[in-house]
Amino acid sequence: MTYLGLDVGGTHTRAVLHDAAGRELARATATGGNPAARGAPAALAVLAEVVARTVADPGAVRGCLLGLSGVSALADPDGFAEACRAAFGLTVPVRLVSDAVVAFAAGAPAAPGGTVLIAGTGAIACRIAGTAVTERAGGLGWLLGDEGGGFWLGREALRHAHAHAHDHPADPLGRAVLDACAAPDPAALLRWAYDGPPHRLASLAPLITELALTGDPAALRITESAAAHLAALVAALHRDDAPIVLAGSVATAPGPVHDGLLARLRAAHPAAPLTVAGDGAAAAARLAAAAG
Amino acid sequence: MTYLGLDVGGTHTRAVLHDAAGRELARATATGGNPAARGAPAALAVLAEVVARTVADPGAVRGCLLGLSGVSALADPDGFAEACRAAFGLTVPVRLVSDAVVAFAAGAPAAPGGTVLIAGTGAIACRIAGTAVTERAGGLGWLLGDEGGGFWLGREALRHAHAHAHDHPADPLGRAVLDACAAPDPAALLRWAYDGPPHRLASLAPLITELALTGDPAALRITESAAAHLAALVAALHRDDAPIVLAGSVATAPGPVHDGLLARLRAAHPAAPLTVAGDGAAAAARLAAAAG
Repeated sequence: MTYLGLDVGGTHTRAVLHDAAGRELARATATGGNPAARGAPAALAVLAEVVARTVADPGAVRGCLLGLSGVSALADPDGFAEACRAAFGLTVPVRLVSDAVVAFAAGAPAAPGGTVLIAGTGAIACRIAGTAVTERAGGLGWLLGDEGGGFWLGREALRHAHAHAHDHPADPLGRAVLDACAAPDPAALLRWAYDGPPHRLASLAPLITELALTGDPAALRITESAAAHLAALVAALHRDDAPIVLAGSVATAPGPVHDGLLARLRAAHPAAPLTVAGDGAAAAARLAAAAG
Repeated sequence: MTYLGLDVGGTHTRAVLHDAAGRELARATATGGNPAARGAPAALAVLAEVVARTVADPGAVRGCLLGLSGVSALADPDGFAEACRAAFGLTVPVRLVSDAVVAFAAGAPAAPGGTVLIAGTGAIACRIAGTAVTERAGGLGWLLGDEGGGFWLGREALRHAHAHAHDHPADPLGRAVLDACAAPDPAALLRWAYDGPPHRLASLAPLITELALTGDPAALRITESAAAHLAALVAALHRDDAPIVLAGSVATAPGPVHDGLLARLRAAHPAAPLTVAGDGAAAAARLAAAAG
């Protein structure tokens, strides 16, 4: 008897196989396998391949759970789950849950519920009860919001660079952005922003974090503002003393956003256990076993 | 001897022919003819066609001036001007200036310089001296800024509708947006926003203005915020008692944004003459005559 968990992200998919005692038997990683991002056929191919590398005996799998961002927006979640079961060669149903459920379980394995903040390119906070998302804050995507996430950080960096492109002496953040975009002047900066896919702005986020670590005032203002936006997403949902879990590179990578966020969350929710999400795929396998 | 002026916008192109005394001889309108938006060949075809309907005798034209948004971002402005001259059949050069120069001249014909605010889908303020733009504020486009413009208004409406989609009783602005997007729920609202071109959000701007006129508090908050953003663009540039000219549908259409903007500008710049831009094509023809 084995249990299979998958953590399906936009850029990485991770699969883990547990035995009945919760010991890890196998693990594999692949590229992003999200049907919302890639279309169902391409996503299924990625998932089937990573499962084939993880599971030697599909007939022995007693439970399978798949954490997926945007699961609530899938046109036909039941159809996709059944297609996964068939593609994986399983005899048990595949269960789809929100990636927020898996992220929460990866940070607070024993808790029946609480709040999880996921800040990577986007930014969303979710209230979790069991394997259900009961409330959301943020998560509107790059076009409409996601303040404090990687796209937002990159956009703030670009706005700053545009405003200060002609300063003398040159401002460090502005110069770093102009260099990263290979832009000699403000007009070239705008062309860089508009000629590529919008999410490319998120690639500038690490510049801000690096410069903030050197004490650059402009970068520190932006990271502090990101921390405030992210803490506000949690505050919009969090109640009682349930755990708060942080997930996603912007919220969890060591540095000024993470530090500022921790400080704000500790001040606002002093009794809530505060953790960083661990291994999502292992959490998905644990959830599969708990449900199986 | 005649003088030809063109006001080339994203959605409309207007051409006007003046005689040497400044009297209008002919006028024609066509679709948008901006080379930055449509590519040079398609833009040239639009412009040549509208000029052919305006000018009976190209050999009599002694001056031609063309106001164009994004003229500073054109890869080869001189080449485009020469291609216009050839396509129009003129014997005199075609002069390209920023649409901001034409808008300013359309509101303050006698002034040597001042400030113009153009707020349509986007939002930019320009300081004008003669036929040159000497400073800009805003105008970063929908992805990076343009706070207070039509895209921004539409995005605020959408964010509001998403946040209040489940309110009971239903909020008027939220309901108007859900109806306009044919969205039964918040998820459908996000799909509407992300499935189309981003500038489609600007189509929601009139909803806000309409509701603000009925006294809706949410719509009034957004229009008031738009007026503040637009007034701040002017304040970033404006000096002395030179005229301030308003142009673009969001800044000039009667209603709460225009009213709020006027009130703020009058308070901040009490000695500056404040006007609304008139006919851009006629202003372009006047500038052509003044230069010729």
